[in-house]
Amino acid sequence: MQSDLQTRLCDAVDAGFDQQTAFLSELTAHPSTRGQEQSAQDFMARALTVRGYAVDRWQIDVAEIQDLPGFSPVLGPYDNAVNVVGAHRSKTRQGRSLILNGHVDVVPAGPLDMWDSPPFEPRIADGWLYGRGGGDMKAGLASNLFALDALAACGLAPAADVYYQSVVEEECTGNGALACLARGYTADAALIPEPFAEHLVTAQLGVIWFQVHLKGRPTHVAYAGSGANAIEAAIPLINALHAMEHRWNAAENRPDDYAHMDHALNLNVGKFQGGDWTSSVPAWSVFDVRMAIFPGQSIVAAKAEIEQVILDAARENDFLRNALPEIVYHGFHAEGYALSQDSSANAAAAINALDHAHQSTTGEPLVREAITATTDARFFGLYADTPALVYGPRAEAIHGFNERVDLESMRRITKATALFIADWCGTENF
Amino acid sequence: MQSDLQTRLCDAVDAGFDQQTAFLSELTAHPSTRGQEQSAQDFMARALTVRGYAVDRWQIDVAEIQDLPGFSPVLGPYDNAVNVVGAHRSKTRQGRSLILNGHVDVVPAGPLDMWDSPPFEPRIADGWLYGRGGGDMKAGLASNLFALDALAACGLAPAADVYYQSVVEEECTGNGALACLARGYTADAALIPEPFAEHLVTAQLGVIWFQVHLKGRPTHVAYAGSGANAIEAAIPLINALHAMEHRWNAAENRPDDYAHMDHALNLNVGKFQGGDWTSSVPAWSVFDVRMAIFPGQSIVAAKAEIEQVILDAARENDFLRNALPEIVYHGFHAEGYALSQDSSANAAAAINALDHAHQSTTGEPLVREAITATTDARFFGLYADTPALVYGPRAEAIHGFNERVDLESMRRITKATALFIADWCGTENF
Repeated sequence: MQSDLQTRLCDAVDAGFDQQTAFLSELTAHPSTRGQEQSAQDFMARALTVRGYAVDRWQIDVAEIQDLPGFSPVLGPYDNAVNVVGAHRSKTRQGRSLILNGHVDVVPAGPLDMWDSPPFEPRIADGWLYGRGGGDMKAGLASNLFALDALAACGLAPAADVYYQSVVEEECTGNGALACLARGYTADAALIPEPFAEHLVTAQLGVIWFQVHLKGRPTHVAYAGSGANAIEAAIPLINALHAMEHRWNAAENRPDDYAHMDHALNLNVGKFQGGDWTSSVPAWSVFDVRMAIFPGQSIVAAKAEIEQVILDAARENDFLRNALPEIVYHGFHAEGYALSQDSSANAAAAINALDHAHQSTTGEPLVREAITATTDARFFGLYADTPALVYGPRAEAIHGFNERVDLESMRRITKATALFIADWCGTENF
Repeated sequence: MQSDLQTRLCDAVDAGFDQQTAFLSELTAHPSTRGQEQSAQDFMARALTVRGYAVDRWQIDVAEIQDLPGFSPVLGPYDNAVNVVGAHRSKTRQGRSLILNGHVDVVPAGPLDMWDSPPFEPRIADGWLYGRGGGDMKAGLASNLFALDALAACGLAPAADVYYQSVVEEECTGNGALACLARGYTADAALIPEPFAEHLVTAQLGVIWFQVHLKGRPTHVAYAGSGANAIEAAIPLINALHAMEHRWNAAENRPDDYAHMDHALNLNVGKFQGGDWTSSVPAWSVFDVRMAIFPGQSIVAAKAEIEQVILDAARENDFLRNALPEIVYHGFHAEGYALSQDSSANAAAAINALDHAHQSTTGEPLVREAITATTDARFFGLYADTPALVYGPRAEAIHGFNERVDLESMRRITKATALFIADWCGTENF
């Protein structure tokens, strides 16, 4: 790419950056937790429409995706699961097509009293924007959009089709990205600006969610010895799951991308509920677990081992032996994905293009990183033969209190993205 | 008492027993869990009114009782906490006055799928009435009422004031019974037909309820090592509380009434809630605990030790050390009570009268029992110098599934109660 064009694109990002920051603030103010994404998607659809993109907005139909690889089981209706895609259709189609993907759903804020300021009233201080979802990943949605704006400000458009995706369900299933694939949105590469500190993600873990339901034999607590406490009965099961976690993390089980990590796979008991009355031995409990798996590790085998571990531990308990736990899957059935294992020329070219864009913007080499989470990249990489580049701004406390994103980092990512688009897709007149 | 009168009273109970069983069924059908007692209290007030008792119905006023001994702290409003008392005012007042007490509140049913039939659709099979609250203690409310009916059927009334009480809040605080005391209802003895298998309760435990609130440092589970899981952090605290339970139950700590019991004091983790999202390290958890204490054991000292145990365990945890748990009291602050320790002539006379009534009805000696629960008896015994006789029918699975009460046992209790009233209060013409 000409140095002159690089400079013009970066100048255009700078010129639009106040507007971009305002856009990020407004988007972050929409409390788009699962099932509540509609106002945020309205906002995204308007932003795409006024820019002239062909906007496609649709409710995810489970029947259309449930037999596809990568589908994750869901509980309850999908009435509020709506994706938005804005399409740029190139006039010349001389370059390589691109998906710019981001998710609009955010995780719950947690107890409000643990935030220094309200999670959905974003504020800017010392170069950071604070708010739930600001980092994970509304700054990425802003970056994708304003990178395209930078081209437009230079009188240019990508010389290939570009699909701007604002999806839901990334935080629990990935079925939003899967539904985009099922609807026919494919391209030569995908870029997902998840907040991994301007590193290129070369590998991500798989994730399985499961619920364990226990039932006890409730009695008046006066006779606690004859009851079975369904809350406390969970403790040895959780301990057994942690022992499994320890085994899975053993050095001999790690693929190369994770060889250096002692504990890449985290098991998280994320929710727990049980009991109805303080003086009744609790009759039931339910706990929700997230467990990670390595790229290449079979979900089917992992689930079988999880079930075996839970049932074996339950059989050690006098009561649970006769009332075995029920294991319910609802949420992630996500395989791991390693871009590092994609030996295609296309992947090499995409990584190379991003590396150049990053270096041109930052003056630093592009750091590669294997991450301990999942992202929607797996759908493109595993099920659509499309290299998926996860590369986004620096953020802190994602899923935590006082989540924040570094605005200068978002600026650099936006510039690098604009340069990457211009290189990967080529340009044509707007 | 004349044998002739005994026979007539027992015959009258038999003659009214179908009606009594229907009354119990109808009362059990009212789902009078905490805060939902109004329809059951309507039913009780009507039953007392049609029989000619002077009905007093009032909402508990926390301000009136909160400084009285025996008060238990409550969370939230008392809008739905309504007591009903029906008074019989004797014309002659020749005998000893009596409180016939029972509670109308019931504990939650728990998961409905664990009941063989709906908990608030009582059914009778093989001599048992099934339903939540049938045993604990609506059969006792029926017994008290129909024992008085038996006297009336014989053309008699008690020759002393009798206060029939249908109270709320027995299952969580006892503040209903306390409010009756505060309202001026006192007598020479109290009878409470809680379902202890036709035994006379000679001692009962104290009970303390407390909540433990934990806050964690939530992060994306990908970085679980840097977070603090507020659910799992509870486990060592629960273990420490069980170690305290073990110490308190040691032989050297047991009063005579409990010397033969290895484990009279039960600690119950009755409710647990925590976390908002499966893939976020949980930021919070709350668990509710019931712990028993022996008669004579100080609540103040017990609370201090509970707090010490929790805080000491928390200080062992790297995270909790800097975010110590909060301990909230809401519910039982109940002292233990031992009728066996009441050396008054009045107590001896009351026990003697009940013993005779029981033997006349059943032909068996009255079995004495120390129980591992609390009842409202403590208010009368500890704070009003009134011997409180806990003596009621056989029931099973109270606080459990398929709770049931033995109808023939209720019949015997009703007869013994009628005989006891006639003896203790004496009789006058109706």
